[in-house]
Amino acid sequence: MPSSAPTLRRITVLSGGVGGARFLQGLLHGLRTGVVPGGSADTEVTVVANTADDWWIHGLKVCPDLDTVMYTLGDGIDVERGWGRRDETWSARTELEAYGVEPTWFGLGDRDIATHLVRTQMLEAGYTLSQVTEALCRRWLTPVHGETVRLLPMSDDRVETHVAVADPDSASGRRVVHFQEYWVRLRAAVPAETVIAVGQDAATPAPGVLEAIGEADLVVLPPSNPVVSVGTILGVPGIRDAVRSTPAPVVGLSPIVGSSHVHGMAAQMLTSIGVEVSAGAVGAHYGARSAGGVLDGWLVDERDAGQLTGLEQSGIRAAAVPLMMSGHDATAAMAAAAVSLVTDGRS
Amino acid sequence: MPSSAPTLRRITVLSGGVGGARFLQGLLHGLRTGVVPGGSADTEVTVVANTADDWWIHGLKVCPDLDTVMYTLGDGIDVERGWGRRDETWSARTELEAYGVEPTWFGLGDRDIATHLVRTQMLEAGYTLSQVTEALCRRWLTPVHGETVRLLPMSDDRVETHVAVADPDSASGRRVVHFQEYWVRLRAAVPAETVIAVGQDAATPAPGVLEAIGEADLVVLPPSNPVVSVGTILGVPGIRDAVRSTPAPVVGLSPIVGSSHVHGMAAQMLTSIGVEVSAGAVGAHYGARSAGGVLDGWLVDERDAGQLTGLEQSGIRAAAVPLMMSGHDATAAMAAAAVSLVTDGRS
Repeated sequence: MPSSAPTLRRITVLSGGVGGARFLQGLLHGLRTGVVPGGSADTEVTVVANTADDWWIHGLKVCPDLDTVMYTLGDGIDVERGWGRRDETWSARTELEAYGVEPTWFGLGDRDIATHLVRTQMLEAGYTLSQVTEALCRRWLTPVHGETVRLLPMSDDRVETHVAVADPDSASGRRVVHFQEYWVRLRAAVPAETVIAVGQDAATPAPGVLEAIGEADLVVLPPSNPVVSVGTILGVPGIRDAVRSTPAPVVGLSPIVGSSHVHGMAAQMLTSIGVEVSAGAVGAHYGARSAGGVLDGWLVDERDAGQLTGLEQSGIRAAAVPLMMSGHDATAAMAAAAVSLVTDGRS
Repeated sequence: MPSSAPTLRRITVLSGGVGGARFLQGLLHGLRTGVVPGGSADTEVTVVANTADDWWIHGLKVCPDLDTVMYTLGDGIDVERGWGRRDETWSARTELEAYGVEPTWFGLGDRDIATHLVRTQMLEAGYTLSQVTEALCRRWLTPVHGETVRLLPMSDDRVETHVAVADPDSASGRRVVHFQEYWVRLRAAVPAETVIAVGQDAATPAPGVLEAIGEADLVVLPPSNPVVSVGTILGVPGIRDAVRSTPAPVVGLSPIVGSSHVHGMAAQMLTSIGVEVSAGAVGAHYGARSAGGVLDGWLVDERDAGQLTGLEQSGIRAAAVPLMMSGHDATAAMAAAAVSLVTDGRS
């Protein structure tokens, strides 16, 4: 019912990397093509990206989620991989391996390195991550999206996800590794005993983040990892409260389809925080706003339609649609369904 | 007269970049093939390299002369260009240009960047440039030359060549640019009013440099730039005195052939210090050790044979041979001639 939908002037999305970026691409496609109720090509989209996966490697500051969103929306992403640059070369990585410097399991592409060089230099010159991100986006987002898309780091402060894994070789029986080591080197194949966002308690939201949530007409939790992506964003003091109290409806899309994560390795993360790996359980973990949570609506895949009743009973509007981001049109349809779920009857 | 030549256990070479590196390659070839009188495959060669061309770019510490020597002797050089890595790719440079960050005229290759990343990280961890160079050379020199070739920076301290050029647009009528800007961007096409090695007075020779000069059986000034390469090395307090006082003979090879520099752009540098652009004038500029200079012998090209008498009169043994480094054999013959010039009759 596009005619009765409230106008969406501003949408704010709390995003992780690959899944969030793909969703955003579909959302923007849906806004441009008019399939998102109330949306248009003029709808401003603010992305608040997780920065707790960021790390320093070979002296470079790497921000995987910011870059994945930036490259994806700026049409520079390697579409197959979902991360990193298209037409990438790997000469520097080959050389770093030849020098024998660690880690060798984190692949820095040559094109990507240029982004990290610019970012690292700006940070070392005293600019904040927000300012650096804005500068980088002037190359990537402005030419493609004008002023309609803004990318903000969740915080300018250092927040770093670390994961405790069992390690029989260690005296304590466990080992704490940076999220990147857990995700990239260990491929999340080892049970995560604990997930800790170091620095999170002392972090403050980056400039514009709380305003983007408070002044939005819609807040979206895309199908990003509910623990180490959306979870760390919500964990920055002030952000969860802003989502709870925004006048805008808040809708999320389940990253879990059936009993597995659409993009792979989230199961360990959920298990580590005691959440069952199911669309319904993740929705319940986020919780209904009416009950102190962050969701007004939660979109699950049609395979998970059996979980709708439980969600509705907990105070979350729920609907089941195809949730596979198989192309821009399919993803735009998901975005449209998410919007409809929380705006129908509100106009 | 190889049979009567004194044994060369140790040779120390004060080198710049491309010209010095090519000479070193020929010298090592000559030692391996037995054409250098007194030399053998066991002769230890210590290279003291100019570091006053070093600079920071895009947050990376780049040492052009150290790297040119290292890549050349480690069989990783781009032979055509004479600098940088073979099979280089330029993805990062393309991207840095796309970001619009300056300078765009200094090309950092992707393979080369890996070297700079390792170096920069080690320096920032507190290692000295000597230690970093030793670590990098473990990859490049040890596999090819075992322990016979050592590469030392002239100093671990920061010494930086700057060049004052006329600039009618400037209030002072001049502009001071880093040597790299003068050499690479301006291609030394503008007259150099002054050449200043910033930091040189306070610099000390790197560990091993004075010993390498004092304990050598032969010291060689290769056909490197007499002002901004060999000149800055000799200008580090202590090094010129070490060359003057070493018991070893000191021989140099003219970088000037006819009235031009073999590798291009040295003329402006000589003019800036008031030295005529000729093989004889450069020899006289270095000066005879017997008269407070640094040379026992000076090898010029056969085209410059007319300048031998003047050199001999100033106390410098001189000879004229073909001085074009057109291949390893030709360069080895030059090295052999240089050795003969100062060791014949000394055995």
